[in-house]
Amino acid sequence: MNINQSERLHNFSAGPATLPLAVIESVREELPLYPKVGASVMEISHRSPEYIEIESSARDRIRRLLGLTEDWHILFLGGGASMQFHQVPLNFLPSDGQAGYLLTGSWAKKAHAEAERVGQSRVIASSADKGFNYIPEPSSWDLDSNDAYVHYTSNNTIYGTQFQSTPNVDSPLVCDASSDFLSRPIDLEKYGLIYAGAQKNIGPSGVTVILVRDRFLQIRKQGLPTMLDYGTHAEKCFNTPPVFAVYMVEKVLRWLEDQGGISGIQATNRQKSNLLYTTIDETDFYRGTAQRESRSEMNVTFRLQREDLEQTFMDEATQNGLLALKGHRSVGGMRASIYNACSLESIQILVSFMKDFQQRNG
Amino acid sequence: MNINQSERLHNFSAGPATLPLAVIESVREELPLYPKVGASVMEISHRSPEYIEIESSARDRIRRLLGLTEDWHILFLGGGASMQFHQVPLNFLPSDGQAGYLLTGSWAKKAHAEAERVGQSRVIASSADKGFNYIPEPSSWDLDSNDAYVHYTSNNTIYGTQFQSTPNVDSPLVCDASSDFLSRPIDLEKYGLIYAGAQKNIGPSGVTVILVRDRFLQIRKQGLPTMLDYGTHAEKCFNTPPVFAVYMVEKVLRWLEDQGGISGIQATNRQKSNLLYTTIDETDFYRGTAQRESRSEMNVTFRLQREDLEQTFMDEATQNGLLALKGHRSVGGMRASIYNACSLESIQILVSFMKDFQQRNG
Repeated sequence: MNINQSERLHNFSAGPATLPLAVIESVREELPLYPKVGASVMEISHRSPEYIEIESSARDRIRRLLGLTEDWHILFLGGGASMQFHQVPLNFLPSDGQAGYLLTGSWAKKAHAEAERVGQSRVIASSADKGFNYIPEPSSWDLDSNDAYVHYTSNNTIYGTQFQSTPNVDSPLVCDASSDFLSRPIDLEKYGLIYAGAQKNIGPSGVTVILVRDRFLQIRKQGLPTMLDYGTHAEKCFNTPPVFAVYMVEKVLRWLEDQGGISGIQATNRQKSNLLYTTIDETDFYRGTAQRESRSEMNVTFRLQREDLEQTFMDEATQNGLLALKGHRSVGGMRASIYNACSLESIQILVSFMKDFQQRNG
Repeated sequence: MNINQSERLHNFSAGPATLPLAVIESVREELPLYPKVGASVMEISHRSPEYIEIESSARDRIRRLLGLTEDWHILFLGGGASMQFHQVPLNFLPSDGQAGYLLTGSWAKKAHAEAERVGQSRVIASSADKGFNYIPEPSSWDLDSNDAYVHYTSNNTIYGTQFQSTPNVDSPLVCDASSDFLSRPIDLEKYGLIYAGAQKNIGPSGVTVILVRDRFLQIRKQGLPTMLDYGTHAEKCFNTPPVFAVYMVEKVLRWLEDQGGISGIQATNRQKSNLLYTTIDETDFYRGTAQRESRSEMNVTFRLQREDLEQTFMDEATQNGLLALKGHRSVGGMRASIYNACSLESIQILVSFMKDFQQRNG
């Protein structure tokens, strides 16, 4: 089969990831003119009523989708989720205090390492012993109610694992939700702060969404660098935001509401991941790399029993218009990243390719 | 006259500012499909050959345009120029040292205030005494060769002033060039680091370009937070960059080369600002707010002698399709921001409106 690159292909990129076609078409329609301003959205002031309306609409939609009450601030910051690895302890890890980290993958490790530069950062549990292929059992966690917060990564992009429920801890939770944000409901009660780089589930790269509860915000340290103080951005639009990225996030949120909101998208996500995992589990030809009870609904990692066939699998997948299935180099094998905007149809076509490949090589 | 908002109007926004139409049309053409990848540029990995090529092309073009030798690193970071106000002293202001700041406007003041949080930050000179309407005479500067660096803001967006030549100091120069970057040549010899938020001269908001000389980089402090250490980003692509913003910057750089590069655009910029200042100076009807020898080629700030007519001026300008001429609230009056992408034609139409308005009200 010849790949036709003048069509949109089935895109399983881990991030920046596929976006809803309707969103991209809507962006296209608004170039070079955003309605009623005589310029594109990238060429108007971030203090203009038009941009303020976009940002406020994005905020309102996140609030509605997750059921955030008014005591939650919603911020749109540049710098990427990696900046949050530093900004979280800078704001919330007191010099004479401690914070707890759950190490379930590379990103969690990086977050922990940055916290160590700021203060005392404890490892509560780690799955490094088995190459991060599972989420540690809560009974094994070394909890301490003196932790100023407990940080965890809700979904681990590289290893294909995901927390199946909210960690039950006494300290306020801080969550890197970059790779499963708005893919399922969040049990907000336990959280102080949630952050998510946009480029997996909610938009293009270039903006990070931060949800921070006011009573948590109020206990942050004082005298912080202005741009790194969450209070600066909670109070007002301090500096020029990444306008285009926020504009796209707002469109993705509209699209998400059209999919039935969080419960609608969660049902589709479950259907998508079930279809893939069932195909993997059906025979011994494929094998999932994450332990079953820790499997991610966002990143499905798998290998062939015959690893020597994996390159052929990926080459043929590409020839069939199935993009970006190569696993992360630290795990090897294959990874299908199937975030919100990856359609059920793309999964069906992937599954049918997998079955065909198995028949020809099994 | 009725304004037709289904056409692109003459946009004098201070930033995010107008972009070349050809650039926006090219973006539009590449939605929803970037050539040969089966997805848009926002939906592919930042480690893909296609994105790496875009970023590398942007870097090469900046290098060629400014004549940067190989000892200069070129970084594309998120977070805005305001983040640099902190990042510069964090990297380069030693705990037992000092740095010098030239205070020529609001942004310079903010940069200085952030440095004060890090260490000893000296004011070398200030034009606050006259509302920042001039660049202080070098003979009045309080220089000290012990300064680890001297920071200045090459162009002051709000007050319409601009350094007419490179400050002659012994310490390495650090420059916030956000509002005149790539509008004129840079005498590189004296600089350690130059930074510029993209949204005025070189792209949309969401990315900041940093030029840092290797021998300056090497004397930065050690043990910094990873994301705030310039060395992290000079070494490799550490985290997901703001892909779309960099992609647009690359297109603006191509456009800039088509305008004859820096010397070509500088000639046009001079023609544009001369036309406006001549119109302002011709009679007493208008008056420039910046002192003549400090005037900016990027932001032309002016008032009417009869300030009671200013609202009428701005209303009629808007009705005539001349956008965003309102001055910053701290100066009042009018401001025409005429960065690289603002065409000579837009200036001619503005000037002809100004003359007509004067005739009717003079």
